[in-house]
Amino acid sequence: MSNNCVFCRIVQKELSSSNVYEDDKVLAFMDIRPVNEGHTLVIPKQHFEGILDIPEELNAYVNKIVKRVAVAVQKATHADGLSIIQQNGRAANQDVFHLHVHIIPKFEGQNTPRFRDLSEVSREQLDQTASKIKSHLLP
Amino acid sequence: MSNNCVFCRIVQKELSSSNVYEDDKVLAFMDIRPVNEGHTLVIPKQHFEGILDIPEELNAYVNKIVKRVAVAVQKATHADGLSIIQQNGRAANQDVFHLHVHIIPKFEGQNTPRFRDLSEVSREQLDQTASKIKSHLLP
Repeated sequence: MSNNCVFCRIVQKELSSSNVYEDDKVLAFMDIRPVNEGHTLVIPKQHFEGILDIPEELNAYVNKIVKRVAVAVQKATHADGLSIIQQNGRAANQDVFHLHVHIIPKFEGQNTPRFRDLSEVSREQLDQTASKIKSHLLP
Repeated sequence: MSNNCVFCRIVQKELSSSNVYEDDKVLAFMDIRPVNEGHTLVIPKQHFEGILDIPEELNAYVNKIVKRVAVAVQKATHADGLSIIQQNGRAANQDVFHLHVHIIPKFEGQNTPRFRDLSEVSREQLDQTASKIKSHLLP
């Protein structure tokens, strides 16, 4: 747990988030600057900067949940495709230095905007999307 | 196993590949059109199109190996960052319809070329890179 880390603060519920899945090891919540509606982040609750320092078994578990959440995101958004992206290091455009896996719905014929051109979505709208995804999430 | 799938043919050793890791469930090998030297693909041996149809436990296992190979790729290439990317569907620019996770070394100040602008590297050069990565792979 790092005091300066926004994702640790989300885990600690010091910052609000629109969650779709939570257990003792993993949290999944809506990206506040979505590429498309349904853009979800899956993180380990424990602070690891990236793939180089997370233990193998925990990376496996995070990605077990990524698969489960990805199915629900696709059902909720009817996306034509899904990008699963996990960036490590500034050279790879990692923005928050707490390991996170992006699940990004993609649509045919759509040019994907650059991450830096994305804007924040209201908490109300993110909560609505999170509810939709949760309703498709298998236990 | 699909006869039309190049990755199934690589698994069956009908097509050559420069492998860095292999077990009964997973294969990791050099991308023939690397974004940078060390660009590696990790696939399940069994044919699944993408994240929507692979079982949770197998996706977990594939990503356990992704973590292990990523560490070796970083050590072999001294990359500043790593992009871990898994595309699903034509709308997400999936090119081969057999689930594969890209491990892409990234360097500070480098503009990443578009996938369609990449060119093929010789088998000899790919084998050399694979050897380097294997030498850093923990058992």
